[in-house]
Amino acid sequence: MPADFSIKRRIQFAETDMAGVLHFSNYFRLMEEVEHAFWRSMEMTVYDAQEKRTVSWPRVAVACEYFMPARFEDQLDVHLTVTHVGNRSVGYEIEFLKEDKRLALGQITAVCCEMTESGFEPVSIPDAIREKLARQTAASGNPVSKV
Amino acid sequence: MPADFSIKRRIQFAETDMAGVLHFSNYFRLMEEVEHAFWRSMEMTVYDAQEKRTVSWPRVAVACEYFMPARFEDQLDVHLTVTHVGNRSVGYEIEFLKEDKRLALGQITAVCCEMTESGFEPVSIPDAIREKLARQTAASGNPVSKV
Amino acid sequence: MPADFSIKRRIQFAETDMAGVLHFSNYFRLMEEVEHAFWRSMEMTVYDAQEKRTVSWPRVAVACEYFMPARFEDQLDVHLTVTHVGNRSVGYEIEFLKEDKRLALGQITAVCCEMTESGFEPVSIPDAIREKLARQTAASGNPVSKV
Amino acid sequence: MPADFSIKRRIQFAETDMAGVLHFSNYFRLMEEVEHAFWRSMEMTVYDAQEKRTVSWPRVAVACEYFMPARFEDQLDVHLTVTHVGNRSVGYEIEFLKEDKRLALGQITAVCCEMTESGFEPVSIPDAIREKLARQTAASGNPVSKV
Repeated sequence: MPADFSIKRRIQFAETDMAGVLHFSNYFRLMEEVEHAFWRSMEMTVYDAQEKRTVSWPRVAVACEYFMPARFEDQLDVHLTVTHVGNRSVGYEIEFLKEDKRLALGQITAVCCEMTESGFEPVSIPDAIREKLARQTAASGNPVSKV
Repeated sequence: MPADFSIKRRIQFAETDMAGVLHFSNYFRLMEEVEHAFWRSMEMTVYDAQEKRTVSWPRVAVACEYFMPARFEDQLDVHLTVTHVGNRSVGYEIEFLKEDKRLALGQITAVCCEMTESGFEPVSIPDAIREKLARQTAASGNPVSKV
Repeated sequence: MPADFSIKRRIQFAETDMAGVLHFSNYFRLMEEVEHAFWRSMEMTVYDAQEKRTVSWPRVAVACEYFMPARFEDQLDVHLTVTHVGNRSVGYEIEFLKEDKRLALGQITAVCCEMTESGFEPVSIPDAIREKLARQTAASGNPVSKV
Repeated sequence: MPADFSIKRRIQFAETDMAGVLHFSNYFRLMEEVEHAFWRSMEMTVYDAQEKRTVSWPRVAVACEYFMPARFEDQLDVHLTVTHVGNRSVGYEIEFLKEDKRLALGQITAVCCEMTESGFEPVSIPDAIREKLARQTAASGNPVSKV
């Protein structure tokens, strides 16, 4: 398994704004797209609705730095690296490249939660998932925490 | 009750596209906003999750004609009229005005559905809801069907 | 050239709503995505900013019928057919399929416009573009109008 | 002038996702809405297209922490504070409250830019704008930098 995972993603017209560039909020949607594609590549899904319980991964913290704008029909390379795997949380770093120039760099911290009547209840990451995430993390040289 | 219901709605930056205007898909989001505000004005909600069943109103047909563009920070008047109330469906017409000039005109047909494991199951509109919708329809001179 | 053009498109998490399905407004974004991919397949772009003039294709009328919901991670086939080519306008029909079941069927009528200070000025479709659109239309058996 | 500026903003159906909550990317759109409303309250606009030059405010860094989910039809209080005014950049902090409970806390750093053929060119904040931003900053006790 490679140390990072990436998708190619073309910028769509509706994702631009009147300044002629990809709206800054849409980078977060692209971050989530590469995250979910990464999960599919491991034959998993981030939103797992079983009969008795639904496990989801709400975000607790996200950030993005912007270096150069992306424009309509640009074909971006969106790279995801797992930066940490904790007991309940996972961290990702996502890099946006256009022809090897870095356009933006983002981070997401997501927490494994069980969905209940009242909201999201943090739970330990199930072993099967943890193992798969850890494998990718190890390949990238990033730490796998036990806490 | 007035024959139509309206909200004022300012166009936001993220809703524009690189052509400098409100993206055509976003008119449908505004149609839904006025629809839901209309329901709230009758002390109802379109997405009613009770203990035993959830009633929702998926769309079966929508349309929009565009006459003039809307731009960033434009303050629009968005008018909703109930055009018909059937046994299971309701029809709306939504007009977008800017200083009395018509920018666009849309239609939505929504069906009353119970949400089940497998999807949406059309059901008769509950009497309490039907009565409120019918009252607004009557005020506008539009027909209330019994089928 | 085939009589229709299609793309495969996976439904993303952010495109769903609390009813668990692709929000009805997002079908219009997917219609535009297949339209623009079609233009790229002919080595053209819908938003052509030259030094002296910018040509764009605002919509004058759109519609969509919905038959079955699309859900997170569904892989849809989105088919586009050119239904007419007029002097200034072009019509598209877009079909959404999931494993050969029709989920939705949409229409877009767009008008060739030059962008000016005050807005969009309809103009005749440039010959080079008209020829390419007509070729696809002919293949599909749809009419090419001269008006 | 008060030390912070706020708007009331109701969560719309299309802004929720299949987990039943406001999608995390949409908090950034709400941050921008309160920012732009703040500018309007000072009789300014963030996207100023004059005959000879267009000034815009692209973001260089943004972040958000999430504490509790927001849901459909929730009426949020969205508070904006100017945290710094530099020579070319301005910083905002945005707090999302629901009935006095903090749902999320975000930051935006935006840079004053002139739009050119090739992109965005950072420029010093025009005096008239700087003065207005500084006044709000002073009221909040936050620093106004000269660099």
